[in-house]
Amino acid sequence: MELLFLGTGAGVPAKIRNVTSLALKLLDERKAVWLFDCGEATQHQILSTNLKPRKIEKIFITHLHGDHIFGLPGFLGSRSFQGGTSLLTIYGPKGIKEFIDVSLKISDTHLQYPLEIIEIDEGTVFQDKQFTVEALPLDHALPSIGYRIIESDKPGTLQADRLAEMGIKPGPHFKHLKEGKSITLEDGSVIHGADFLGPHQKGRIVAILGDTRPCDNAVELARDADLLVHEATFSADSAEMAHNYFHSTTAQAADIAMRANVRSLVLTHISSRYGKDDWASMREEARSIFANSDIAFDFMEIDIPYSNRETGE
Amino acid sequence: MELLFLGTGAGVPAKIRNVTSLALKLLDERKAVWLFDCGEATQHQILSTNLKPRKIEKIFITHLHGDHIFGLPGFLGSRSFQGGTSLLTIYGPKGIKEFIDVSLKISDTHLQYPLEIIEIDEGTVFQDKQFTVEALPLDHALPSIGYRIIESDKPGTLQADRLAEMGIKPGPHFKHLKEGKSITLEDGSVIHGADFLGPHQKGRIVAILGDTRPCDNAVELARDADLLVHEATFSADSAEMAHNYFHSTTAQAADIAMRANVRSLVLTHISSRYGKDDWASMREEARSIFANSDIAFDFMEIDIPYSNRETGE
Ligand SMILES: [Zn+2]
Ligand SMILES: [Zn+2]
Repeated sequence: MELLFLGTGAGVPAKIRNVTSLALKLLDERKAVWLFDCGEATQHQILSTNLKPRKIEKIFITHLHGDHIFGLPGFLGSRSFQGGTSLLTIYGPKGIKEFIDVSLKISDTHLQYPLEIIEIDEGTVFQDKQFTVEALPLDHALPSIGYRIIESDKPGTLQADRLAEMGIKPGPHFKHLKEGKSITLEDGSVIHGADFLGPHQKGRIVAILGDTRPCDNAVELARDADLLVHEATFSADSAEMAHNYFHSTTAQAADIAMRANVRSLVLTHISSRYGKDDWASMREEARSIFANSDIAFDFMEIDIPYSNRETGE
Repeated sequence: MELLFLGTGAGVPAKIRNVTSLALKLLDERKAVWLFDCGEATQHQILSTNLKPRKIEKIFITHLHGDHIFGLPGFLGSRSFQGGTSLLTIYGPKGIKEFIDVSLKISDTHLQYPLEIIEIDEGTVFQDKQFTVEALPLDHALPSIGYRIIESDKPGTLQADRLAEMGIKPGPHFKHLKEGKSITLEDGSVIHGADFLGPHQKGRIVAILGDTRPCDNAVELARDADLLVHEATFSADSAEMAHNYFHSTTAQAADIAMRANVRSLVLTHISSRYGKDDWASMREEARSIFANSDIAFDFMEIDIPYSNRETGE
């Protein structure tokens, strides 16, 4: 599980930061990539990475501002042109379907794969054995969604070697033991599954939020997460401007990370008013409040390792 | 009058050729720039030029395929964000208004300048003292327009020095003479304006065509033009494929240029199947039919000088 930032700017593209998009790479986990937002020229950014558009199975849109969605129609067409045939599902606020439908209709774009568009507001928007994605509304000029991506815990593996030493062989018993249940052998002795299971691997949690002022739902979405991606459109001294434009400062994002007890914070959606020389100080503004903070740049890729908080139930 | 190619590729963006857009720079003529087509990331390309979005007063769309229009919503928003306040007029086939209106509505984009969208099919789509723009349909998979931009002729300047030598001073007479009329002096002698006018400066003609198979309307639009911009999606040996996809080859574009008696031809909309090593041979395919041919590349800028065909009426 890695996060690849495709665009880390705000509002309008700049040479050094494109408008917003990031890819959650789940290649090891499910041979797939999930995209979060798709600003204009996201497909151009992808050309400079090893991402394959056909591997992108889901796109989560946080909100409908142009810098988060105007790359969608072109990306959808190119995914088809480049041989994508598998289902693509798009999640986003009400209105995303009309935008996509009209764009594809007017441009006479015929996709060679099934496209599913699911308009959401809050709640569990996706769930399978591996992952759950939950959504809550944030505080922005128009409906903006924060996503919490929860990887399912992996149960510990059964220690078959130890059981074999005790004369217990693979068979129906194993299923019960794997589930942590107890079994009674023919000699009347009782074996507890929990005693023969390796440690649980706690799943990872990533929170990826749309544009927002600091708000309680941001804390809730990020609670105990391994990684929080939070916007920081402005530097710490511009809290009033951030408020007026429905955005956050570096310091506010760090405060959310601290309150949510996350493991790490990455700031993105940096206004183009800030240049290279400002980024280090913006990072420090966050670090002075929450130490494990970083500031994203286009094409930054970070690994999201398992935490050491393993639970040996 | 210069032509700046912002995107010269076809269908999908490639690292080296973006999707279609070109800028007709009329800074000397009217302190303005006209854009022809606006594929995705046209505003990104503009960032690498000295073009000012607020100077773009008109956008002519040739057809509604995504690679020609998906950059529009983002460009419109950024032109506003960057301080554009003057009227912008967009011309294009039926459907362009719905695409723009829905994109701006869904993304809650409020422009700080008046936007006029004129849906056209053929005929004179714009005319003022300086320029006339005519449109004709081409032969593509969906309605595609070719544009003929005609600069008005500049009348010759009145040779006031020569008239002064003859004792004729500035006054009401001058107006008549400037218009090429004759006047009768008090002594009964007749002065013909035509004898005292410098040479007319014939206006320039540029033909910029949308995607098309070779067709008669392309010849008509390009007749005697100073410059023809014609698509050449495929090389000369792929005429059948070009036909099936409603496109042209290098050789077909050169044939149109020859039949239309243009001064120069620039090929654009080059398929990404062709790489750097192919372009010289593609140019030669055109030159073997029409000598004054060139192949466009992103950021190529060409001057369009007045021809020497001055008419000394
Ligand atoms: Zn926003
Ligand atoms: Zn086309």
